[in-house]
Amino acid sequence: MAKDKQFVTEITPQAEDFSRWYIDVIKKADLMDYSPVRGCIVFKPDGYEIWEHIQEEMNRRLKATGHRNAYFPLFIPESFFQKEKDHIEGFNPELPWVTEAGGDKLEERLAVRPTSETMFGHMYSKWIQSYRDLPVLINQWANVVRWEKRTLPFIRTTEFLWQEGHTAHENEEEARAETMAMLDNYRDFVETYLAIPVITGQKTPSERFAGAVDTYSIEAMMKDGRAVQAATSHYLGTKFAVAFDINYLNRDNVLEYAHTTSWGTTTRLIGSLIMVHGDDRGLVLPPKVAPTQVIMIPIGPPKTREAVIGRTDELFQELKVAGVRVGVDDRADVTPGWKFNEYEMRGVPIRLELGPRDMENGVCVLVSRVSGEKKIVQQDNLVEEIKTLLAQVHQEMFERALKFREDHFYSVDTLEEMNASMEQKRGFALAGWCGSDACEAQVKEETGATSRNIPFNPAETKQVCICCGEPAQHTVVFAKAY
Amino acid sequence: MAKDKQFVTEITPQAEDFSRWYIDVIKKADLMDYSPVRGCIVFKPDGYEIWEHIQEEMNRRLKATGHRNAYFPLFIPESFFQKEKDHIEGFNPELPWVTEAGGDKLEERLAVRPTSETMFGHMYSKWIQSYRDLPVLINQWANVVRWEKRTLPFIRTTEFLWQEGHTAHENEEEARAETMAMLDNYRDFVETYLAIPVITGQKTPSERFAGAVDTYSIEAMMKDGRAVQAATSHYLGTKFAVAFDINYLNRDNVLEYAHTTSWGTTTRLIGSLIMVHGDDRGLVLPPKVAPTQVIMIPIGPPKTREAVIGRTDELFQELKVAGVRVGVDDRADVTPGWKFNEYEMRGVPIRLELGPRDMENGVCVLVSRVSGEKKIVQQDNLVEEIKTLLAQVHQEMFERALKFREDHFYSVDTLEEMNASMEQKRGFALAGWCGSDACEAQVKEETGATSRNIPFNPAETKQVCICCGEPAQHTVVFAKAY
Repeated sequence: MAKDKQFVTEITPQAEDFSRWYIDVIKKADLMDYSPVRGCIVFKPDGYEIWEHIQEEMNRRLKATGHRNAYFPLFIPESFFQKEKDHIEGFNPELPWVTEAGGDKLEERLAVRPTSETMFGHMYSKWIQSYRDLPVLINQWANVVRWEKRTLPFIRTTEFLWQEGHTAHENEEEARAETMAMLDNYRDFVETYLAIPVITGQKTPSERFAGAVDTYSIEAMMKDGRAVQAATSHYLGTKFAVAFDINYLNRDNVLEYAHTTSWGTTTRLIGSLIMVHGDDRGLVLPPKVAPTQVIMIPIGPPKTREAVIGRTDELFQELKVAGVRVGVDDRADVTPGWKFNEYEMRGVPIRLELGPRDMENGVCVLVSRVSGEKKIVQQDNLVEEIKTLLAQVHQEMFERALKFREDHFYSVDTLEEMNASMEQKRGFALAGWCGSDACEAQVKEETGATSRNIPFNPAETKQVCICCGEPAQHTVVFAKAY
Repeated sequence: MAKDKQFVTEITPQAEDFSRWYIDVIKKADLMDYSPVRGCIVFKPDGYEIWEHIQEEMNRRLKATGHRNAYFPLFIPESFFQKEKDHIEGFNPELPWVTEAGGDKLEERLAVRPTSETMFGHMYSKWIQSYRDLPVLINQWANVVRWEKRTLPFIRTTEFLWQEGHTAHENEEEARAETMAMLDNYRDFVETYLAIPVITGQKTPSERFAGAVDTYSIEAMMKDGRAVQAATSHYLGTKFAVAFDINYLNRDNVLEYAHTTSWGTTTRLIGSLIMVHGDDRGLVLPPKVAPTQVIMIPIGPPKTREAVIGRTDELFQELKVAGVRVGVDDRADVTPGWKFNEYEMRGVPIRLELGPRDMENGVCVLVSRVSGEKKIVQQDNLVEEIKTLLAQVHQEMFERALKFREDHFYSVDTLEEMNASMEQKRGFALAGWCGSDACEAQVKEETGATSRNIPFNPAETKQVCICCGEPAQHTVVFAKAY
């Protein structure tokens, strides 16, 4: 038992130091390691597998809606960035440059892509001639690099993995519909797959993607009250079409610019789900992306060990065949108590215990990671019981996260109230905003909070700007953000 | 019909100019496009989807054998390459260097990875302490870059996609067993999934991977008689373990170096399957990786059009539900003949035709892309018929490729004979070799052929070296290679 105790205390409690808790958990649960390259991490197998499950489901959704995957070059010629002035202003400070290759100095520097609007733009201008070629609906899974000053594993790393969708359409209406459909796809995915409730809305102009007409986002609340922008979707208007000459003969045989969109989500989703669901015992992984959904632990004295393990293996096979991601820990040199802690720390959604008495009774014990509740179930009906409990764990995780967010969501009317929301009460603040960059900047300066988005469905509509007292143009969610 | 004729002649015949045929086909079938970055291509959706099917099956196989995916950084510090001298000599001329980032000159240049032995080595030295940590079996799907002088789409591009497996083991025996198991996995995958017969064997020292103790390969014959190295597997001994300090306490509590392996295959598989199976009408895609396995074409006069399309859609749904990748081309403004040519050019394994008479009889017509044979089948039994025919198409493709290879495989005893094998008769040549680098180099100089590998099961065993006439140490497959 001493070992168990020591084990738990290796993770800093969230209330003591949330940042340390986060690093303790992801290291201890073996999701990542620091690499020797500044700001880059190694995604270890358990961390990477979460990403693989995200990819599977995102691919299913994107393909079902007519999108196809492709792959565009890693390197982008410097001149491409010059073509869209907002874009270069936004990304220039973050670019790494290849200047030499194959023993020679390059004539034109190549950026390692921070995003691929320019490369897609260049190719789309070649591919699109007529309205018959539209829409073009392409997605790419890729690594991208942004030379960030401050990094945090998964949440903000120099190199990260993502998907970036780039579409081209005949007109604004269709392009805007795509922008919103993809935003809603992200919301639905994050809620139903990662059990993370999000606030859907539009970014203010200062927080727009570099080169976008409009940017929309989904914003999630971490357990320290900070926000993570979990995905974005951009309507680019004809800005990149003009810059890259993406035009086409329309139905009236007139040359016209295409309207384009882009949208993406990244490996920061992994960091988000950890900071939304984790607790002082470690990770709590959403069942749909957990590398291991059920860990089976045979228990009991040595004399019954062989029989219990035999039955465990049978049930393991049943679950595996049914498509459950299941593991067995039948090590004899580690106590069950130690194992319980270990897999709780790793966030495995369900623990299954099987002992000699359970065998006699044809039952086993299921323990939910999120509620800690024990349930005795019939072995005969195990697959169904597991599937039901996995769905229930997901639902409970979502509801807890939603309750946490509601408990930390404040309506504020003064900068003092907003300050309190950020510091003592740690959460999101809903406030009125006149629409000026100056007021937005002042809020940030005085409270540390940035505008997250203008929610589509705010709980209330604010009448005056929290900063200048003029009539509010928008009701905005403010928060400190990762 | 004039349109059909013109269509076919847009592809250069293989016999006239194989290289032009290849470029014509991949462009026309929309698999790729050239990018504005030297030697880099865009993998368009139909090209990329072939890679996705390769990934799915490779992942299935790797996971079934205990391997897990992870992701390591794109950038590798220059000093890492210095640690293994053969490695730096082999890769230095091909490296692109990031020298500036975020507005600053970097203190140490970062290479864009050409392969990741050094980065894995660095991390493995941190992770591996005891024999209990072994084996480590990790695979990575990634982009890599090699600044090649001459490039060819899919086959040799500056940036390409691949998987690289990196494993660490307690001893030589286990590491060698892994090396061979992965080689055999590649052979089996390429034969049973891509319908490409390959020659399995060991590379000569001059053709070894930079830093390997032994390199093994599978070699495929293209339709112009040239070889493509389709995959490699390396036993690295303790060379990288010594360079990166991957040591562990063994079962006797003694510190010992781990034995490592690496193995990989790339998007050149896409180029290979095109050059092995394609013909003058275009692509012939192996059913298991074809983006579209069955194309349905409703035919007949306008008055029955609606009814035929209705029935086509029903059958489409049946096939789709059964997991067949099926498409329908019911465009009214294009003739069936034009469509037949189009999907033959795109290499779709099976064409399904349905007309009003077929409807009356409850049948439809299936046409195999590889043999051109027509088969009338009952609609009631369509899913089974399609699955059987897809398997048959695969089998026929494999047998044709095998026969082609056998017809172009020569046993030679003099350099003149080898020259004839390369030039007039275009194929692989089996020859004796004394084992000296000098003789190998002379063969290359006089015939243009390089040693592909020392096959495990040569058709015959040669007694003397083709070059110097001394006793042969090995019987070697020589060929001109891509």
